[in-house]
Amino acid sequence: MAEGSDRYDVVVLGGGSGGYACALRAAELGKRVALIEKDKIGGTCLHRGCIPTKTFLHAAEVADEAREAASVGVKATFEGIDMAGVHAFRDKIVNRAWKGVQGLLKGRGVTVVSGEGRLAGPGRVAVGSQVFEGETVVLATGSAPKSLPGLDIDGERVITSDHALRLDRVPGSVVVLGGGVIGVEFASLWRSFGAEVTIVEALPHLLPLEEESSSKALERAFRRRGIKYELGARFEGVKTTDTGVIVTLEGGKTVEAELLLVAVGRAPVTAGLGYEEAGVRLDRGAVVVDEYCRTSVPGVYAVGDLLPTPQLAHAGFAEGILVAEHLAGLSPAPIDYDGVPRIAYCDPEVASVGITSRTARERGLETVEATYDLAGNPKSQILQTQGSVKIISEKDGPVLGVHMVGRRVGELVTEGQLIYNWEALPAEVAQLIHAHPTQSEAVGEAMLALAGKPLHVHN
Amino acid sequence: MAEGSDRYDVVVLGGGSGGYACALRAAELGKRVALIEKDKIGGTCLHRGCIPTKTFLHAAEVADEAREAASVGVKATFEGIDMAGVHAFRDKIVNRAWKGVQGLLKGRGVTVVSGEGRLAGPGRVAVGSQVFEGETVVLATGSAPKSLPGLDIDGERVITSDHALRLDRVPGSVVVLGGGVIGVEFASLWRSFGAEVTIVEALPHLLPLEEESSSKALERAFRRRGIKYELGARFEGVKTTDTGVIVTLEGGKTVEAELLLVAVGRAPVTAGLGYEEAGVRLDRGAVVVDEYCRTSVPGVYAVGDLLPTPQLAHAGFAEGILVAEHLAGLSPAPIDYDGVPRIAYCDPEVASVGITSRTARERGLETVEATYDLAGNPKSQILQTQGSVKIISEKDGPVLGVHMVGRRVGELVTEGQLIYNWEALPAEVAQLIHAHPTQSEAVGEAMLALAGKPLHVHN
Repeated sequence: MAEGSDRYDVVVLGGGSGGYACALRAAELGKRVALIEKDKIGGTCLHRGCIPTKTFLHAAEVADEAREAASVGVKATFEGIDMAGVHAFRDKIVNRAWKGVQGLLKGRGVTVVSGEGRLAGPGRVAVGSQVFEGETVVLATGSAPKSLPGLDIDGERVITSDHALRLDRVPGSVVVLGGGVIGVEFASLWRSFGAEVTIVEALPHLLPLEEESSSKALERAFRRRGIKYELGARFEGVKTTDTGVIVTLEGGKTVEAELLLVAVGRAPVTAGLGYEEAGVRLDRGAVVVDEYCRTSVPGVYAVGDLLPTPQLAHAGFAEGILVAEHLAGLSPAPIDYDGVPRIAYCDPEVASVGITSRTARERGLETVEATYDLAGNPKSQILQTQGSVKIISEKDGPVLGVHMVGRRVGELVTEGQLIYNWEALPAEVAQLIHAHPTQSEAVGEAMLALAGKPLHVHN
Repeated sequence: MAEGSDRYDVVVLGGGSGGYACALRAAELGKRVALIEKDKIGGTCLHRGCIPTKTFLHAAEVADEAREAASVGVKATFEGIDMAGVHAFRDKIVNRAWKGVQGLLKGRGVTVVSGEGRLAGPGRVAVGSQVFEGETVVLATGSAPKSLPGLDIDGERVITSDHALRLDRVPGSVVVLGGGVIGVEFASLWRSFGAEVTIVEALPHLLPLEEESSSKALERAFRRRGIKYELGARFEGVKTTDTGVIVTLEGGKTVEAELLLVAVGRAPVTAGLGYEEAGVRLDRGAVVVDEYCRTSVPGVYAVGDLLPTPQLAHAGFAEGILVAEHLAGLSPAPIDYDGVPRIAYCDPEVASVGITSRTARERGLETVEATYDLAGNPKSQILQTQGSVKIISEKDGPVLGVHMVGRRVGELVTEGQLIYNWEALPAEVAQLIHAHPTQSEAVGEAMLALAGKPLHVHN
């Protein structure tokens, strides 16, 4: 713990992605930093979110490839999923990254405090009877799975993603309540593991915040994979039985399954932590901040899933770094959240950066767009995926949005990110010929089409 | 064939990547175009190169994942390779793309002529007794596997990549002569298919044109995979026996195997085609051109593997498009070949764009560099790959080179391409936070390190 003093330049409350990134960057900039975490450094992303789900999704990919091996000339037999083995794989990956982050914090001289912190006033965080004083306090207490009114999580039949990641078996059947990122990722991996899956989504589409054409493409792909879904379907109630659950939808339709996964979103963890008592303004549970992540209380900042910004680990990284650099007087640029890339790692993946055509319309922007179907991309064909790359650009102006569907497209959005954030014109990208044969060529082809010089496209 | 006339604006001799891209773009720009091909439209890349090898490499990936499935919790048994199945997979992919290109040419009104063409003078290409006249002639006759003096290809024991792609079995053992892209790709896929492989390379490293650290990383990875190699080893001779080959290296060392794959490069196909008679200047078999792909004969251009530029399909695309746009008076910018991305699709993949540190030294540039080890990247860990991303940048200047090793990094070089070609500063990339968890984060981390603000790196 602190060497002789509990006074710091920066006290960070919460050691998830946003909190630890802030601590690392602040320490790098010469600040004395304390980082308080009640559980494990790395937070939701590392222990209950991004990383463990991606290990499951990779196992799902391997399972599907083994099942379909004959289609590429490989003789292999798929025999099933060994959940203990999947858990061991997850633990290996998570523990390695966990040790890595702890090592980084130690290497930069951050004081890591194990315990449940509470904001005890501006500049003061209490952990039990001990008080850590900081010139600046950064709130980073993250989020937790939420439920619906009247829907009780029992951890057995009605579960959240936290329970799903600890499940010791592949369920025979699951109802997934919520077609957002968490819902479609679990639907995808459970299907690959052999389960019967039905998604229930109240809005008209899966991934309702994505470009509508991406949502529709995902729906088609899921249908082909035998993943069922009820769209525009409101949850009314669930009854647990000895063998499972009976989920009732508005209108009376019922769906039976072994489990109900509640994936209706994650709520900021802001209650009972002294935030409101200290005068920190909240809005529907989220901490209200300005463009530098400053709360309504001077000297108190907030980052990560606490904010009403996208609940993404890399948004948390960006916010943590922004705060550290702002504190150090480096004049960092505020974050353009439209420019933060988004990926759902289901099969097929859905990835995007920038805005949707709906948002462009709402903002009164005149746009043009081009869609390249991965059916024309040889590498996509080799990966046996369907999907597309859609580019939305301002008329005679820069690229506004990049929207992709297909296996492994999550890695392609990085190019889209540069294009969007640097306000590139389609013609500027089109003159660069992408490597052949890669899936990234689909981005190039869409840009060539937008620039009026389509190559591998009928015109 | 031509409708009532054999006069065209542009006559393209050779229907591979460079030739057909030129034909498509020229037609799009309003030119009357004839495209002459003696074999199949699509050329080496589609029928004997990029695409078929990538289908084999994908089968190799599936085989390896099935073998190692238990490590991620999947119960599967790998039983072997069904070469007839691999060939069927390849044919499916190739034929689909082949039909696609033919459809594009038809859709744009390009006259496709089936037959062996020969330059019969400026503006004239003869196919048998028929002469096609063009205001411009574009030579695009490609390349063919070459051998070494005294090394005879018999197509049975001593083979080229053309034969290797038609082989009806997985060889028990192979000597691969040449550690360039073709050599390492076949070494990698045959190893995954179950063969014993030894690469013989005369230069000190595999992929000798790549950044030395990439070559060394590939060598370590190949060693772990049980792929043997002899570096700095000059081929002296080969003796075929009833069961295979005995390859002798300078110094007397011998290596025995079932097959010898000769992968010492590809030579431009320029002989016997009337080029020299028409006055087209050649240099060691390659057509000499200026920055607009103009040969020494007015009105005669050349694109693709004929040129002493990188023998890459996408370089051919770029050259073909450049010529078409130049002919149409569009003032296209000459190609910066350093900015053309390069990928070897072995496992692990090696990808790069820009220049190596050796080239930077030769050009007298003062550089800084950062390497991010994929050991710190969670997605790379999930993919169970080792590797790195190395960025070379001019001191206080733009990024000069991006060099990557690791599974699937070929798709990441697209970001490197934008960075290099737009002369981005590391700090400009570093302020953009990449999506988590992706392998592309490794590029971001290397840029953060170069910009003096490392995140997930010990400093």
